[in-house]
Amino acid sequence: MSYVAPLKDMLFAITELAGIDRLSALPGCEDATADTARAVLEEAARLHEGVLAPLNLDGDRCPSTWKDGAVSATSGFREAFRQFTEGGWQGLQHPSEYGGQDLPKLLSTPCIEMLNAANLSLGLCPLLTDGAIEALLTAGSEEQKQRFVPKLISGEWTGTMNLTEPQAGSDLALVRTRAEPQGDGSFKLFGTKIFITWGEHDMTENIVHLVLARTPNAPEGVKGISLFLVPKFLVNEDGSLGERNDVHCVSIEHKLGIKASPTAVLQFGDHGGAIGQLIGEENRGLEYMFIMMNAARFAVGVQGVAISDRAYQKAVAYAKERVQSRPVDGSAKQAVPIIQHPDVRRMLSTMRALTEGARALAYVAASHCDLAHRHPDDMTRAKHQAIYEYLVPVVKGWSTELSLEVTSLGVQVHGGMGFIEETGAAQYYRDARILPIYEGTTAIQANDLVGRKTVRDNGEVAVMLLTQIDATLNALRSHASYRTSPTFQAMVRHLSAGRDAFYSAVRYVVERVKSDPNAVFAGSVSYLMLAGTVLAGWQTARSLVLATDKRDEDPAFYDAKIATAHTYATQVLPRAVAFEAAIRGARDGEGALALREDQF
Amino acid sequence: MSYVAPLKDMLFAITELAGIDRLSALPGCEDATADTARAVLEEAARLHEGVLAPLNLDGDRCPSTWKDGAVSATSGFREAFRQFTEGGWQGLQHPSEYGGQDLPKLLSTPCIEMLNAANLSLGLCPLLTDGAIEALLTAGSEEQKQRFVPKLISGEWTGTMNLTEPQAGSDLALVRTRAEPQGDGSFKLFGTKIFITWGEHDMTENIVHLVLARTPNAPEGVKGISLFLVPKFLVNEDGSLGERNDVHCVSIEHKLGIKASPTAVLQFGDHGGAIGQLIGEENRGLEYMFIMMNAARFAVGVQGVAISDRAYQKAVAYAKERVQSRPVDGSAKQAVPIIQHPDVRRMLSTMRALTEGARALAYVAASHCDLAHRHPDDMTRAKHQAIYEYLVPVVKGWSTELSLEVTSLGVQVHGGMGFIEETGAAQYYRDARILPIYEGTTAIQANDLVGRKTVRDNGEVAVMLLTQIDATLNALRSHASYRTSPTFQAMVRHLSAGRDAFYSAVRYVVERVKSDPNAVFAGSVSYLMLAGTVLAGWQTARSLVLATDKRDEDPAFYDAKIATAHTYATQVLPRAVAFEAAIRGARDGEGALALREDQF
Repeated sequence: MSYVAPLKDMLFAITELAGIDRLSALPGCEDATADTARAVLEEAARLHEGVLAPLNLDGDRCPSTWKDGAVSATSGFREAFRQFTEGGWQGLQHPSEYGGQDLPKLLSTPCIEMLNAANLSLGLCPLLTDGAIEALLTAGSEEQKQRFVPKLISGEWTGTMNLTEPQAGSDLALVRTRAEPQGDGSFKLFGTKIFITWGEHDMTENIVHLVLARTPNAPEGVKGISLFLVPKFLVNEDGSLGERNDVHCVSIEHKLGIKASPTAVLQFGDHGGAIGQLIGEENRGLEYMFIMMNAARFAVGVQGVAISDRAYQKAVAYAKERVQSRPVDGSAKQAVPIIQHPDVRRMLSTMRALTEGARALAYVAASHCDLAHRHPDDMTRAKHQAIYEYLVPVVKGWSTELSLEVTSLGVQVHGGMGFIEETGAAQYYRDARILPIYEGTTAIQANDLVGRKTVRDNGEVAVMLLTQIDATLNALRSHASYRTSPTFQAMVRHLSAGRDAFYSAVRYVVERVKSDPNAVFAGSVSYLMLAGTVLAGWQTARSLVLATDKRDEDPAFYDAKIATAHTYATQVLPRAVAFEAAIRGARDGEGALALREDQF
Repeated sequence: MSYVAPLKDMLFAITELAGIDRLSALPGCEDATADTARAVLEEAARLHEGVLAPLNLDGDRCPSTWKDGAVSATSGFREAFRQFTEGGWQGLQHPSEYGGQDLPKLLSTPCIEMLNAANLSLGLCPLLTDGAIEALLTAGSEEQKQRFVPKLISGEWTGTMNLTEPQAGSDLALVRTRAEPQGDGSFKLFGTKIFITWGEHDMTENIVHLVLARTPNAPEGVKGISLFLVPKFLVNEDGSLGERNDVHCVSIEHKLGIKASPTAVLQFGDHGGAIGQLIGEENRGLEYMFIMMNAARFAVGVQGVAISDRAYQKAVAYAKERVQSRPVDGSAKQAVPIIQHPDVRRMLSTMRALTEGARALAYVAASHCDLAHRHPDDMTRAKHQAIYEYLVPVVKGWSTELSLEVTSLGVQVHGGMGFIEETGAAQYYRDARILPIYEGTTAIQANDLVGRKTVRDNGEVAVMLLTQIDATLNALRSHASYRTSPTFQAMVRHLSAGRDAFYSAVRYVVERVKSDPNAVFAGSVSYLMLAGTVLAGWQTARSLVLATDKRDEDPAFYDAKIATAHTYATQVLPRAVAFEAAIRGARDGEGALALREDQF
């Protein structure tokens, strides 16, 4: 099998780290139990391992193709997507009144991980459709919701997000697509959108495009952008399909990775105007888009975990099979499987520590999102919402940056074979490279983390997290194993140094951002990386305590958890102090900020 | 222009850091002056910028092709290679008695950098030919030298290195290719070699394969391997070409990068035996191969510098041109070129600091190689040889690992465009990925650094380097600028911490390798990365002092050097302490070394 869902680790993160019990205790969430989780995950694993994962390599070798405006998905994708949606997986996290399953994010997140580990290119279609559903549910009229959401959940149609234009990427203030009111409540759209993921395909009979555009006389910049719904085929009042709309795919991109996912250039209104309807109020499009982007950003972070896990599994399989060189400690005279060599173990163990740490952080974030939506108490909801919002750019930025490291190590474990495309390790390296770019580059996430998530509340949420890290440090220090376990000692040493670095960085960012914005923003990505390293390290430390206490229940699993915690403590956490030095080292008028353009 | 050779920085490294004057002072090296260097580099730049660089993208889009055993190079490559060899560039570092230029390595190294920056795939052909020439000059008979070396230097023929077999990659003890003596002094070879770079092509009329194989009754393992010369076409006594030999290219690989460079599977002896001649003595093949591998490893390190520089140049050009978002400090109301954004500056400046640091280290290493070969005093020669040998695995391992970081940052600077193959940034990211793998993976370099280069002399050479770092630290502290310059202060703080980490790691490796080999080798790559980070940081610190002293001679250039030193000090050097923690954190029975195979 090319991918096996890591059910044990997922369930450990769901039950032990993210604490599903806190959810089950909430009114209306009685079903969200560990048993439900297991049942859902096992069912998901069957589909993703058996149907979607085997198509991943096909998608890379035979990408989507474009011909005369039509895009054909890789052979087998249409049927796989049908099985996916018929199984109800598209509706996992959406309201039951529109045909969804209404599951908490804590349970949909592992399913999203499996989907993307199995097939990142295919996984993007449901991911974008989720975004379209969220936007409609947030800002759409009841009629829009009724007409579009059930079809998106059932998988009869798919959704897209149309933000980017050639001159407007990270900077949506530069959007130029026009929407002209027709007097009957509808609009006609004119413009070009690029980088539209699954913007055209033949997997479903219709595609619902959500499009950012400007109405006449709209204010300049981001305050003059509205959100429109532009279906590929117009939809009649009874829900049946009408005429073909004036939105056409003029080409798809030739990309480094995720080749099966068609990245479309869409032309709106070349033949009289693409008919669209306004979603929500005029000029509030960016606000709505941000709601759906937050969900998409979190999901992209989970893609980072997903592809890391798949790369890890492949590297482990190769390392067990490939025989090469005698052991360095002289324990055998013959060449051994390379998994026995210390450096191969270091690579595999680092891949695993990063992946499990990122998974734990993402699942814990998901549980905060659930509590923010479902807890009866306003203050508690607000607190969890604030924590979730702090974690979203970290999960997105850090988990995707580390997926570059993990997939690169995956290639390295394979040696020369890793560079041969036939092997398959290179595909993960190529596929992962988009993750720190789309849905907001790491710098965009870092700016969000600095500006909206740290400076705005004077670091209050960050300090709340630090207090919880301190509690974990206390638990480690007062644990019976502390005196005897090198892993406990290494974790205390490096988590405590990481915690101090994190605190110091938060103070620095808050205090300096007004007086020295350039220096602070030159350190913003390092701040994000520091936060991710320490927060995932904290989850790893919690795992260490839990695994030690539960060890006898399942020695093989919990011993591996403890070993992975040692790797995280010694190989990953020490980076925290280097990130802090990088943050504090950035100075206006020095280094990167000293050079004139012509000196680069 | 897609590539501009960084002549100023190259000449700075040659004259100021590597001290070409020390070379010119040697008997027979009077011509090796700064003026010669400038003339050679300017000439090289013309060819590489104008002829080879423009073909780089073509090679990626239209790789070499295989048909019925014949390989056609990308269109234009044959002519470019002809111009390269006619210009005398293949013979740069080889003896004049065989048609070479006999230039010091300090001058050939920048030319090799230009070649590989211009066209990594094409550059591999001369690189491997250099290896074949070195092996023949080291171990060949005078007749072999006379018959083969001049044709290899003139570019009439090219050379290859045939080491790897399907079961024998890093572990050459597993080589199985057989060489059977024919009674007339010749041998017939039988076997399969894989991953043979430029193992078959149509750029020249003949190809000289150097092949590792076993004679009958040879001892098992690495002590039973001999080196053979197996030409594609047999060579008559008068140097004319004879019959086609029984070595055939049965396929070429479909690779992640360097696609224009054909990676051949060669079948020896399927039609009666490939006729070969022994080079040097039987069973000493691996020893000869190591001589040529040392040269090739150094050259691959230079490839890391080369591709990093090219990725940097491309990213700078894009960042100056792409307009997006307003400045974070509110200094303009309109979107500005992204090079003005702090995080883009951080990325570009980090790319540059890593590249210039790696270049400086490689050129300094080259000068040690020259002094080791040309100095009249035995002791001095031995000292420089020891330093060079210490630096080779560092240059190879560190410069290639960092090329992954630099080319990845290059993609990131481009945002979404970086992921589109048409842009070209992705090619560097793909091409670079082979560098930490071929000619010995980073782990193999790290094992060499630990075993032969650190433990064998009890860390003596490493400590010699540390003493020189201390001298530079003293120069920084006693400099007039120390009290006022944040860059000097940052450099002293982080170089000094890095120096301590390096020293500590050397002591640890030497003291623990016998009692705890698995832990030491689990930390070996971190040790290599630590050594590279600190040694290149040391060269950067030397640059800082020199640039400060010479600043008024060329303010734009030297100010940029000073700024780059600040970036290296604050963004790169702090990693040293994290590497040390990783080295000391590896423990037998914990972390990576605790898991059973089935627990991965």
